Amino acid sequence: MKSDIYKTSIKLHKKYGGKIGTLIKTPLNNKLDLSLAYTPGVAGVSLELSKNPEKAQELSLKSNTVAVISDGSAVLGLGNIGAYGAIPVMEGKALLFKKFADVDAFPICLNTQNSEEIINIVKNIAPVFGGINLEDIEAPRCFEIERRLVKELDIPVMHDDQHGTAVVVLAALINALKVVKKDKSAKIVINGAGAAGTAVCDLLIQYGFINIVVCDSKGAICCNNKTLNNEKQRIAKFTNLKKETGDIHKIIKGKDVFIGVSKGNLITKNCVSNMNKDAIIFAMANPTPEIMPEEAKLGGAKVIATGRSDYDNQINNVLAFPGIFRGALKNKVKKITNKMLIKAAINLSNLVKNPTATNIIPSPFDKNVVKAVSLAIK
Amino acid sequence: MKSDIYKTSIKLHKKYGGKIGTLIKTPLNNKLDLSLAYTPGVAGVSLELSKNPEKAQELSLKSNTVAVISDGSAVLGLGNIGAYGAIPVMEGKALLFKKFADVDAFPICLNTQNSEEIINIVKNIAPVFGGINLEDIEAPRCFEIERRLVKELDIPVMHDDQHGTAVVVLAALINALKVVKKDKSAKIVINGAGAAGTAVCDLLIQYGFINIVVCDSKGAICCNNKTLNNEKQRIAKFTNLKKETGDIHKIIKGKDVFIGVSKGNLITKNCVSNMNKDAIIFAMANPTPEIMPEEAKLGGAKVIATGRSDYDNQINNVLAFPGIFRGALKNKVKKITNKMLIKAAINLSNLVKNPTATNIIPSPFDKNVVKAVSLAIK
Repeated sequence: MKSDIYKTSIKLHKKYGGKIGTLIKTPLNNKLDLSLAYTPGVAGVSLELSKNPEKAQELSLKSNTVAVISDGSAVLGLGNIGAYGAIPVMEGKALLFKKFADVDAFPICLNTQNSEEIINIVKNIAPVFGGINLEDIEAPRCFEIERRLVKELDIPVMHDDQHGTAVVVLAALINALKVVKKDKSAKIVINGAGAAGTAVCDLLIQYGFINIVVCDSKGAICCNNKTLNNEKQRIAKFTNLKKETGDIHKIIKGKDVFIGVSKGNLITKNCVSNMNKDAIIFAMANPTPEIMPEEAKLGGAKVIATGRSDYDNQINNVLAFPGIFRGALKNKVKKITNKMLIKAAINLSNLVKNPTATNIIPSPFDKNVVKAVSLAIK
Repeated sequence: MKSDIYKTSIKLHKKYGGKIGTLIKTPLNNKLDLSLAYTPGVAGVSLELSKNPEKAQELSLKSNTVAVISDGSAVLGLGNIGAYGAIPVMEGKALLFKKFADVDAFPICLNTQNSEEIINIVKNIAPVFGGINLEDIEAPRCFEIERRLVKELDIPVMHDDQHGTAVVVLAALINALKVVKKDKSAKIVINGAGAAGTAVCDLLIQYGFINIVVCDSKGAICCNNKTLNNEKQRIAKFTNLKKETGDIHKIIKGKDVFIGVSKGNLITKNCVSNMNKDAIIFAMANPTPEIMPEEAKLGGAKVIATGRSDYDNQINNVLAFPGIFRGALKNKVKKITNKMLIKAAINLSNLVKNPTATNIIPSPFDKNVVKAVSLAIK
């Protein structure tokens, strides 16, 4: 099955020679057009921008262009496959930006995985971009790279694996809890403490959830453990308040919600059976979820979501990032805040009027999605 | 006049919010399309490219995408106006690439003018690009940057201010000499020993011209002068064989051809009068030529060309670079050689069946231009 869809996808990419190209926005049919879009007229625009660089946002492609930047160190569920392996995914994101939000995005795949070098390159290529979408960069390097770029650039910078994921998870969780009639006191376990797990945890806490335990591959993260990296230590301060210990198979017992952003085939239907009644399972590892939906159902889960398009309830970043950058560009937002992201998640959840077990999140093809999300980014 | 066209150009850029955007090449109308262009299908393409990076040229945007890269250090005739000032020009080149050769080009304007840093950045962002068009980088830094990138990358790299200019000048000169019935023994003075002057000189020599003197702002370049930079010393070895000395106003006397790639309002009609009969004047400084065509005519020039679209005989790089990269991408050429460039110039000159004083070079809107040039790049 997998190899079939892989082959079909390779054929598609070959047929079209990739997925995106460029288009011309201005008239260009005669010498006069040429003299305005290019020399000699363009010199007037160049002089203007050399004096007032901020006007690039109205007089150039910067007005509507986002860079999708990866070093290929953590691509999909494939791991560190390098710059070339990253191209089809970053080009795919550019495609989604255009399709869903009419944002002109361009993929940049970096042939280095040195964080300082990446920061330096992104800063130096930033002039033509109105926003920077960092993508598929491994944790914990992704945190420092994003933090520095947010601080040092005057355009919005967002690591989508963190914040795009967090927005969609929060939106889906809001509706899933409505289905099972539970609230912010729900007991949540997040499995995976990388880019996505960390950001999901942060956003859920800021939204008001209080009972969260985060597990990494060694088990529950707890503030007693001083060998954790900085990010995990930070998270440990406001999660796992009861200091639970043990691996995910132990920690999942008695929880209301499982949020998996880790790896495929990690939990069994018995794990789900050990959760509280009406369990919510978000098994988002790609391409293979932590537990297949059929299994989770056998274990008694009430609401099941994955990252896949071939099951109900696809928790897919495409619901968030196009609208987030659409809003940021339109409203000339310089920093994307958690407050904006929470509002985006709420707006997104509200698009599903009557949530059910198989319908907690809108489809990416729902025309209202981008508008709802973008309205929050201001 | 100038401020009028500047204002009109600024208005145009503002109206459209820049000049280029992105387009979608593959179908994207439903979940199946999404699963092939993006996850999970795209993982198959990513795995393929991580194993065989060279396949990016058939399975990704690399197949048809060129980077137009500048550090803004020598933009048009405006000088060092930095990365933001460069944006409208680089975006304009991307526009021309698309319009004339259906090449998807993307502008990258670098916020650094450190050569080593530029080389490093270009190497690191190269994976998504099928070719690198360097642009408006000051001499002599441009020579080292191009030389290193040509050597260290496995895709074609060309500094257009050098080689694009050289191709169009050679094409125009071939036809201008037909008009005045002179040959390769014509006495040529090139004024300007920067990026364009150096490359024009090289290509004319390789084509077979023998009597060339190159002047910089201090006068004729001569092999006796050890204070010259490396590039000028290199050129001095095979030009100015009679060891002429003096500034352009002296050197131009008795010459058949003046090729100006320097700055505006540099020579007078008296200078032209001092040239041989049926003088050829290529006054290509932008936006103001070394001498206005009306003046050159009063001085007795027979064939006059400029870089401007508002006079006859526009010697414009747009006649060369789209076709050069079109050919390079199509034929998967890894290095662009002078032999290819000379063939491109000959093909270009042949498009004008019966050259006259006011028609030595085809229009950029001539549909045959790109094909003629691209056929040479293989």
